[in-house]
Amino acid sequence: MKEIDLIGFIKELWPINRSITGKGLRQTLSVIKEYLPELNLYEVETRTKVLDWEVPEEWDINEAYIEDSEGNRIVDFSENNLHVIGYSAPVNKELTLEELEPHLFSLPEKPNAIPYITSYYKKYWGFCITDLQKKELKSGHYKAVIDSRHFEGSLTYGDLQIKGQTDKEVFISTYCCHPSLANNELSGPCVAVALAQWLLSQKDLKYSYRIVFAPETIGSATYLEKNLNDLKSKVIAAFNLTCVGDERAWSYLPSRLGNTYTDKVALHTLNHCTDSYSKYTWSDRGSDEKMYCAPHINLPMVSVMRSKHGTYPEYHTSLDTIGKVVTAKGLSDSLELHKKMISIIENDCVPITKIIGEPQLGKRGLYPNLSHNRSSELVRTRLDVISYADGKHTLLDIAEKCDVSFFDVLDELEVLLKHDIIQIDYLKV
Amino acid sequence: MKEIDLIGFIKELWPINRSITGKGLRQTLSVIKEYLPELNLYEVETRTKVLDWEVPEEWDINEAYIEDSEGNRIVDFSENNLHVIGYSAPVNKELTLEELEPHLFSLPEKPNAIPYITSYYKKYWGFCITDLQKKELKSGHYKAVIDSRHFEGSLTYGDLQIKGQTDKEVFISTYCCHPSLANNELSGPCVAVALAQWLLSQKDLKYSYRIVFAPETIGSATYLEKNLNDLKSKVIAAFNLTCVGDERAWSYLPSRLGNTYTDKVALHTLNHCTDSYSKYTWSDRGSDEKMYCAPHINLPMVSVMRSKHGTYPEYHTSLDTIGKVVTAKGLSDSLELHKKMISIIENDCVPITKIIGEPQLGKRGLYPNLSHNRSSELVRTRLDVISYADGKHTLLDIAEKCDVSFFDVLDELEVLLKHDIIQIDYLKV
Amino acid sequence: MKEIDLIGFIKELWPINRSITGKGLRQTLSVIKEYLPELNLYEVETRTKVLDWEVPEEWDINEAYIEDSEGNRIVDFSENNLHVIGYSAPVNKELTLEELEPHLFSLPEKPNAIPYITSYYKKYWGFCITDLQKKELKSGHYKAVIDSRHFEGSLTYGDLQIKGQTDKEVFISTYCCHPSLANNELSGPCVAVALAQWLLSQKDLKYSYRIVFAPETIGSATYLEKNLNDLKSKVIAAFNLTCVGDERAWSYLPSRLGNTYTDKVALHTLNHCTDSYSKYTWSDRGSDEKMYCAPHINLPMVSVMRSKHGTYPEYHTSLDTIGKVVTAKGLSDSLELHKKMISIIENDCVPITKIIGEPQLGKRGLYPNLSHNRSSELVRTRLDVISYADGKHTLLDIAEKCDVSFFDVLDELEVLLKHDIIQIDYLKV
Repeated sequence: MKEIDLIGFIKELWPINRSITGKGLRQTLSVIKEYLPELNLYEVETRTKVLDWEVPEEWDINEAYIEDSEGNRIVDFSENNLHVIGYSAPVNKELTLEELEPHLFSLPEKPNAIPYITSYYKKYWGFCITDLQKKELKSGHYKAVIDSRHFEGSLTYGDLQIKGQTDKEVFISTYCCHPSLANNELSGPCVAVALAQWLLSQKDLKYSYRIVFAPETIGSATYLEKNLNDLKSKVIAAFNLTCVGDERAWSYLPSRLGNTYTDKVALHTLNHCTDSYSKYTWSDRGSDEKMYCAPHINLPMVSVMRSKHGTYPEYHTSLDTIGKVVTAKGLSDSLELHKKMISIIENDCVPITKIIGEPQLGKRGLYPNLSHNRSSELVRTRLDVISYADGKHTLLDIAEKCDVSFFDVLDELEVLLKHDIIQIDYLKV
Repeated sequence: MKEIDLIGFIKELWPINRSITGKGLRQTLSVIKEYLPELNLYEVETRTKVLDWEVPEEWDINEAYIEDSEGNRIVDFSENNLHVIGYSAPVNKELTLEELEPHLFSLPEKPNAIPYITSYYKKYWGFCITDLQKKELKSGHYKAVIDSRHFEGSLTYGDLQIKGQTDKEVFISTYCCHPSLANNELSGPCVAVALAQWLLSQKDLKYSYRIVFAPETIGSATYLEKNLNDLKSKVIAAFNLTCVGDERAWSYLPSRLGNTYTDKVALHTLNHCTDSYSKYTWSDRGSDEKMYCAPHINLPMVSVMRSKHGTYPEYHTSLDTIGKVVTAKGLSDSLELHKKMISIIENDCVPITKIIGEPQLGKRGLYPNLSHNRSSELVRTRLDVISYADGKHTLLDIAEKCDVSFFDVLDELEVLLKHDIIQIDYLKV
Repeated sequence: MKEIDLIGFIKELWPINRSITGKGLRQTLSVIKEYLPELNLYEVETRTKVLDWEVPEEWDINEAYIEDSEGNRIVDFSENNLHVIGYSAPVNKELTLEELEPHLFSLPEKPNAIPYITSYYKKYWGFCITDLQKKELKSGHYKAVIDSRHFEGSLTYGDLQIKGQTDKEVFISTYCCHPSLANNELSGPCVAVALAQWLLSQKDLKYSYRIVFAPETIGSATYLEKNLNDLKSKVIAAFNLTCVGDERAWSYLPSRLGNTYTDKVALHTLNHCTDSYSKYTWSDRGSDEKMYCAPHINLPMVSVMRSKHGTYPEYHTSLDTIGKVVTAKGLSDSLELHKKMISIIENDCVPITKIIGEPQLGKRGLYPNLSHNRSSELVRTRLDVISYADGKHTLLDIAEKCDVSFFDVLDELEVLLKHDIIQIDYLKV
C-alpha cells in the first residue's frame, strides 16, 4: 500500500483527462488502487439501464485544436484539457469566425479563466477558451479539429469495503470524473483515499465502511442500481466528499430530510471544531447527494465541505488549481474533520448510570474534597454526563445539552466507565 | 342569473334596513337569489331553540324620529337607518332632554359619525346621532317616536350548495344582518356572491362548496342546529367572509385551533400574494368564527380580511361607506385572493415520484443540455418538486419548503405529470 | 402550634452550629417541631447505606481557637461558627505560621468575609478567617485547638405529611445542615415552615403534601432510600426551597427534564407575578435537586429562588446575614409566590364547556346588553375560557394561551361553573 501524500496525490492525478467514462476514469481508479489495494473495480456495459439513466458510451479523445488561417494552433487541448467541452463530439472542418462562435465558450465576467463545460447527453462539439482570447479573435477562417470518438464500452467505478463489528455501515462517496480541476474535484478522491487509509489502520471499528469512487450522477445511479437494497438496509450515516481542498470556508449541506443522525454529527462537529461555517439548505444541493438522498432512496447523506461548489470564483474553471484554491492545510483540515465525525459515530452510545441518585464521586476520588463555591464547576462535565445518563440521551445528545464538545464528554465517559458508574447501551440510529 | 358588479351590488343592497330577522333580511336574501338562482332559502320559526340560543321575534319598523318642541324632525330614521338602535323597542312620548339623554348614543371621539348600535337580547329603545348634533341639543321638550314592533315570525337564511367530485366540502359563510354599512358588512355578501358565481363557472371542481348567507351569530347558531353533523363530517376548509371591501390592509384571523389546513392555505396565500398583512390571534376574533370554531363544533374556519372589524376608524359607524372605506379594487382584490386560496385547495395533492433516484430530465427535454455553473438554478423549482415528491409532502408543503408560490410549484407539477415522472395521491386533510 | 414570625424564626435558629449530623441538626429539627407539631422525626444509624452513600458519623465540637505566641485567642469558634471547617477533625498542637497556613482558608477577593467550608468525606482540620486577618498574621508560633470528635451515632431528618383528597402529592424539600448563614440556608426552612402552617390551615386540599427537612445531599439520599417507591408513585410536583430570603432577584432553576408540570407552574407564576427573573438551566444546579431529579429517580423538582446559590457575593460566607442579605419582605414575597404556585396546582383542571357552540352569555347576565365596538373586550377572558374549554386544555394552558394570569382565568371559571356553562374534568399530571 502506497502511503498518501495529499498534495502529491492531486498532482499525480492532475494531468489525466477524466470524464464520466473512458480511459481517464479507468486510469484514475487504477492509481487510487495503488493507495488502496483492496479497492474493488467494476465495469458496467454501455446501454445498461441504471435507475432512470443509461450507461453512456465511452469517450476517447486524441487531440483537439483550433488553427487560424496561418496554421497557428491558437487553442490546443494538449495544453489544457478544459479547452474541449467534456464528452465533445468529433469535428474536423474549416469555418469562419462567425460559424465557429457558437462552439466557443468563455466567461466574460472572468476574462482569464477557461470554463469547464460538458455536454454528456446531447452530442455537441465545442471549445472553451478565456474571454481575453475570444475577444482578440479576428474574423477570418479557422480550422477546428476534435479527434474524439464515442463507442460501446463500459463505465468504471470502484468501492472499498471495510468490515467492522456490525454490518451497519457508514457510507462515503466521492467522484472522479472531472478533468484538471483541484477543489472540485480532485480534493474529494484525495481526502477519501486518506480517510480510507486511516480507517484501515483503525482496530476494532464498530461500524463497517464503504467508500465509493465513481463518476458523478451516472456513477451514483449505477452504484445504486447494483446496491440499493444493501445500502438501504445497512447505512446509518453517509457523507459526500466534495470541495474539501481549500482553506477559505467551511460549509454544511444537509441531507434531504435534514434531521438525520449524520446531520446531527456534522453540525455538532462544525459547531465545536471550526470557527465558523456556512449552513446551506437542501435547495443548494448540486452533487451526488441529489441521487443518494432522492425519494425512494433516502440515504442520510450530508456534505461537509470547505468552499461549496458554485460559491467560489474559481469553481468550474481553469483557475481551480493547487495553490490558488487547494492547499495542503485545506485538505488535511478536511481530513481531520471527517475523522472527528467518524470518531463521534464510532464512539456514540447510550450511557446509563448504574447508580440510583447522585453518586458519591468523592469516595472514588472523582470530586474535590473541600467544598467551596466552585467545587462542582471543576467537574461539571463529569456530573452532566451522569445526570443525563438516563438511557434517553445518546452521548452526542449529552454533548449538545451541555454545549461542550463530544470529545470532552467522551473523556468523562471513559473515567466513569472505569469506575463502574456507567454502563453503555449500543446506539440504534 | 344576474352577473354581479361588485360596487353595483353593494349600492343595490345599501338602502335596505337589515337586522337579524325581518323584512330587510328577507329582501336582501331575495336580491342575492337573483344573482344565485340556486340559493336555497329557509325560514325558522321564532322561539325555535338553536344550540344555546333561541330564534328571536321578527322586528319591523315603519318610521322613527325625534321632534323638537317646534315640531322640527331633528333626527329621522328615513334619512339614515343607523339613527335607530337595531331591534329597538317602540316608543312614542314627549320627554325632556334629560329624560331623552339615556336613549341617545353618540361617539365623542368621532364627532361626525353616527354609531351603529343594537340591542337584540334586551328590549330597549334609543337613537344614534353624531356627537356634534348631540352637543347642540338645547334643553326643552322633545318627542321621540319609534314605530316598531316585535312579533312571532321567522328568521331567514340561505345556502348555496355546489356539488364537486367528492362530498368533502369547502364551507364559506357570510352574514347579512347589518343595515347601511359598507365594509362591515355588505362587502362580505358581495364577495361571497362573486365567489359563488365564479365557482359555478368552474368545471370539474374536486370539492363541494357550501356558501351560507345568514344573520351573524344567531344565524350561524341556526345553521349549525340544522346542519352540524353534516358539516362536521364533510368540511375540510372554511372561510368567514367579512370586512373584505377596503384596500388599506390585509388581515389574517386564525381558526381556534390555529394550525388547520385552512390556516396553512391562508398564510401561504397571504405570504406570497400580498405585500404585507396583519396577523391576528384567536383572541382578536369577533364574528361568526366564534360560533363555527367553538368547542364541540371545531370547524377549521379562518378569516382573511382587509381591515379587520374593530380596527379601522369608520367601523360600525355611518362613515363605513362606499368610497370612504370600500372600493372596487378592495373588493376585487379580496375576490381574487379568495379564488387563489380555493385554487390551492382544489389543486393541492400528494405528489409521488415514479422514479427511483434523481430522474434524468435531460432526455425528456426538461433540463439544459450544456452543464455550467447555473444549470440547475434554471430548473430549481422543477428539481425541488421531484425531490420532495416522496409521499410525505403535499404540494403546499413543497411550496413552503422551497419558499416559492404554490402556483409556481403547480406549474412544475403539471410539466412533470405530462412527462409521467410524478403520480399524485389525493390529499387527506 | 407556635405561629411563625419569619425573621424571628431565622434569628432563633441562627446561633445553632448545624452540620450534616449531630447535635445542632437535631436541635434545629426540634425547634421546627414546635412550629409543626405533626413533624415526624427519624434517626438513621451511622454506616447505613443510603443509595450510593453511607450515613457518616456524628460530629460534635466543644471549642476551637487559634492562640498566638502570647496566648491571645486570635480566632475563636465561639465568636463565629464559620471559623472552623465544617466536620473538622480534631487538632491540638503548636505550629509555625508556615505549618498552620495549609489549614487556614480565606477569600482574597472578599477580604472581610469568613468563608464557609466543609470537609465531610475526607478527614481534615482547618480554620476559616477573613483575608484581612490572614494577611496580618506574623510569623512565629501558634497553637491550634479544635476540640471535636466523630462518633457512631445517627443522622436526623423530619417530614410532615398533610393528607389531601387524593394520594397524589406535592413534594417540598428543604435542608438544615448549614450553620449561621441566612439566605443559604436558613431562609429555606423558614419559608418551608410558613408554607406548611399555611397548608395546614387550608380546608379541602385536593393534593397531599409532604415537606421534608433534612441535611443537604446525604439527607436527601437517606430520604430517598427510605421512600423512593412511595415518592415515585405519588409525586406530581416538587419544589426545592433554598435561597428564598433576599429581595434582590427571582431565579428559576428547572427540573432535569425541564418540561414537567412543576416547570410549567413555576414559569407561569414567575412570568405573571414577578417583574423579572433569571432563567437558569439544569447545568446551573447545585442543591438537593441533584439527588431528587437524578436518573432512576426523576422527581419533577424545580427551585424558585431569590438570588440563586453561587450567584450573590455573600454566598457561603459570613456576610450572608439577616439585613445584609435576607429581609422580611424577601422571605414573605417568596412565601407568597410559593402559595401562588400551590394554588395553581390545587385549582388547575380541565374545563369542558357543556354548551355546543358559542353560548348566549347575555341571557345569563354575563355579557353587556348593548353591542358596540368594545363589547367583547370587557368579557374577553370569560369568552376565552369558554373557547378553550374543549377538554384539550388545562386551565393553566388556557391562561398561557390567553397570556393572562392563572388567577384571572380561575375567577372566570368560577363564574362559568356557577352558571352551569362549564364542567370540570380532573387533571392527570
